[in-house]
Amino acid sequence: MSEPFVVVGGDAAGLSAASKYRRENPDGDVIVFEKGDWVSYAQCGMPYFVKGEVDSITDLLSLKPDQAEERGIDLRRRHEVLSVNPDEQTVTVRNEDGTFEQAYGDLLIATGARAVSDPIPGTDLSGAFTLHSMDDTAALRAFLVDEAEAEEIASVEYVDGDYVRGFGARDPPETAAIVGGGYVGVEMAEAFSAHGLDVHLFQRPDRLLEPFGEAVAEEVADALRDAGVTLHLDMEVKRLAGDGGRLTGVECANTRLDADVAVVGIGVAPNTDLLSDTDVELGDSGAIAIDDHGRTNREHVYAAGDCAEMRHAVTGEPDWTPLGLTANRAGRAIGQTVAGDPEPVGDIAGTAVVKAFDEECGRTGILDHERARDAGFDPVSETVTAGSRSGYYPGNAETTVTLTADRETGRLLGGSIVGTDRAAIRIDTVATALEAGMTVAEVERLDLAYAPPFSPVWDPVLVAAKVLRGSLD
Amino acid sequence: MSEPFVVVGGDAAGLSAASKYRRENPDGDVIVFEKGDWVSYAQCGMPYFVKGEVDSITDLLSLKPDQAEERGIDLRRRHEVLSVNPDEQTVTVRNEDGTFEQAYGDLLIATGARAVSDPIPGTDLSGAFTLHSMDDTAALRAFLVDEAEAEEIASVEYVDGDYVRGFGARDPPETAAIVGGGYVGVEMAEAFSAHGLDVHLFQRPDRLLEPFGEAVAEEVADALRDAGVTLHLDMEVKRLAGDGGRLTGVECANTRLDADVAVVGIGVAPNTDLLSDTDVELGDSGAIAIDDHGRTNREHVYAAGDCAEMRHAVTGEPDWTPLGLTANRAGRAIGQTVAGDPEPVGDIAGTAVVKAFDEECGRTGILDHERARDAGFDPVSETVTAGSRSGYYPGNAETTVTLTADRETGRLLGGSIVGTDRAAIRIDTVATALEAGMTVAEVERLDLAYAPPFSPVWDPVLVAAKVLRGSLD
Repeated sequence: MSEPFVVVGGDAAGLSAASKYRRENPDGDVIVFEKGDWVSYAQCGMPYFVKGEVDSITDLLSLKPDQAEERGIDLRRRHEVLSVNPDEQTVTVRNEDGTFEQAYGDLLIATGARAVSDPIPGTDLSGAFTLHSMDDTAALRAFLVDEAEAEEIASVEYVDGDYVRGFGARDPPETAAIVGGGYVGVEMAEAFSAHGLDVHLFQRPDRLLEPFGEAVAEEVADALRDAGVTLHLDMEVKRLAGDGGRLTGVECANTRLDADVAVVGIGVAPNTDLLSDTDVELGDSGAIAIDDHGRTNREHVYAAGDCAEMRHAVTGEPDWTPLGLTANRAGRAIGQTVAGDPEPVGDIAGTAVVKAFDEECGRTGILDHERARDAGFDPVSETVTAGSRSGYYPGNAETTVTLTADRETGRLLGGSIVGTDRAAIRIDTVATALEAGMTVAEVERLDLAYAPPFSPVWDPVLVAAKVLRGSLD
Repeated sequence: MSEPFVVVGGDAAGLSAASKYRRENPDGDVIVFEKGDWVSYAQCGMPYFVKGEVDSITDLLSLKPDQAEERGIDLRRRHEVLSVNPDEQTVTVRNEDGTFEQAYGDLLIATGARAVSDPIPGTDLSGAFTLHSMDDTAALRAFLVDEAEAEEIASVEYVDGDYVRGFGARDPPETAAIVGGGYVGVEMAEAFSAHGLDVHLFQRPDRLLEPFGEAVAEEVADALRDAGVTLHLDMEVKRLAGDGGRLTGVECANTRLDADVAVVGIGVAPNTDLLSDTDVELGDSGAIAIDDHGRTNREHVYAAGDCAEMRHAVTGEPDWTPLGLTANRAGRAIGQTVAGDPEPVGDIAGTAVVKAFDEECGRTGILDHERARDAGFDPVSETVTAGSRSGYYPGNAETTVTLTADRETGRLLGGSIVGTDRAAIRIDTVATALEAGMTVAEVERLDLAYAPPFSPVWDPVLVAAKVLRGSLD
């Protein structure tokens, strides 16, 4: 009998792979080792659970453990894979009973990424969160609500009840410090504001949501300020301060803020420790290098999701942009490939959207000029503001679009969008054009939708293409 | 001195051409002849003015006559071009003083289309409207509101005051008959309902919005019925009945409905009468045949907008789909070409969106299998229903997507979408993929946006591509 397909990590990539493998190959064995209690949870939904917009933390699970079992997946929670031996085709696994070796026919590393908080001392203080685990998420919401509601959260299946109850018993915080102005920071500003906290956001760079470019950053900063959030831009947090193990504030070089709760969202790093004794290659980003079918340099060893690089659609080069769809798609493709029907994992365009109070933000491709030049392009950008609907139709809202293209070829390299009326989803038009390798002239001539309630005659994306093309001539 | 650039028709295509020509060539002369009083009005906005969502009828004007003059356009309203003489490079024009000949250097025919009501007798009855002119639109709203508000509409500049006042003085209608279930019919059902009328919609085919396909038609029919509209599908209206010149009802083969007001929207036809004595070629559709720069078969004679054919992006063949963006874009390109900087008019994909009460509908490309087969494809379609947002996020709504592809090549041929949450604008993703010539597999691998408030991990378009690809294998 052949050895099983072994998957390390029970989140998006791992369970997508296992599920697809079983669908394609109902007689095949697949074992999924998951270090923790939780599997297949929607990290992107966490701020909305904290905010209170999502009722139950289990709503964030896209696949519950018993559902995985129903699909014929041998799911083993609280099993940590410590190391991989590609020569022997085995992994070393630790569970509560000790360690053991598990042989594999094919192996998928889907260990994800972890929140980085290293440069900032004090993140272990009680009241400081990185919002990267389900139990932290449950505890943070329990901290914000009354004790009765906290008890409800604590008693949900899989939740670490004692940890959560500890926060439920404390007085709700009044001042929140957010360290980092990326997705998590911006979304948590909204979540804390919904609970009536005095919210302070500290960002080391001089703008929020850096990958979205300047135009989006400005609109988002305005939206946060309008909502009462105090922004501390261009300000580095040196450490979180505490007293008796509890967070009391954050400290910068020349200032200090008293705070009862803090969320640190300053980045993530790929989980690759289990490969440290192998010759499985990592890319320049530190994430695992893979080919177009998700294969590493070692036979029968695949990687997918937040721990792996992907090829960028614009540069054709490896890139590390950990995002949900990428993990799901690559996992699914590898499950199919391992089952015997090779399927490419696809490229990424770095398409991302985020909500900042009422502002909808989107970005795709390469916007940063330095990065574009590094990839051999001569970037030119234009930013326009145009209506989201016909000017006479109620609900028309200003929509700001930036497009970047290569001067010589006219090829579209990237784009961003921000606005309050159906703005975010319009980035998909730009992402599609990008992946098709379209020029700005071709984008300008796209036959896009027009009807007064939804779009003006010239969609903001077309207006931006028109202006950018003028600059390329 | 060279002869002027002469444009026939002062709406989207004509004024876009004249404006662009003047921008590129500030010393050039351009004359626009417009038969009526109104120029550059947004036909797509008319139902929303009737509904009351757009305050003033002049809001529908994208360019007022004095603005055209400011751009250096010699705009001559109430000037009808009766005929064209391509050999002499002249047009014959009639105004209130008589007729005269005007020489041209280049000529653009931008005469648009007219509402077709010929097969149905009685559309000349007072109370029957085709909603194709601004005065009709003004009169219809005046009919629906009280006399004071009607007087306001009647006294607006450019409006035919006496015509409008006549309707304002009448008792408001209680029962509305809509003949035709296309864009105008569906939008007018919403407009009449907003005024509290008992609304009946008659449609000769067995479904609404035929170009949008069956899946959209079903959702739209449900939405209209839920809003209290009585649908008479598969029912041909034989004639409009009247008494003393006023509409009293509509008559079908076996039934009759008493009605105080009727809108007939059963189609449009290109205005080409002025070319009947020339050898300027028309296409199979009856609209004017043009090349990729908008040139007809006669030198210095161009055509654009609702009177002209365009090349279809999927078939590569001429097609007649009169829509607003097409007219604007082609007009603008021809203005640039005539100014000396040749610009292609672009292809069309037949992208269209329409609002049906709360349902947002979109379509693009070729959905109809018979038409796809005529174009040499072997069409396969799949329809899926998926969420518009993450399932746990408030506001998630069912979104139904149909995609059609060619079995042999996997090339995407067309798509449709319907749903209540940001559905319509998603058709732009499909339109872009279509114009890029993408296969369904390539669409399935698109790196589209994901964030719980805006889209699930797998956007409905990706879900549809996944399912359709399964059917192609």
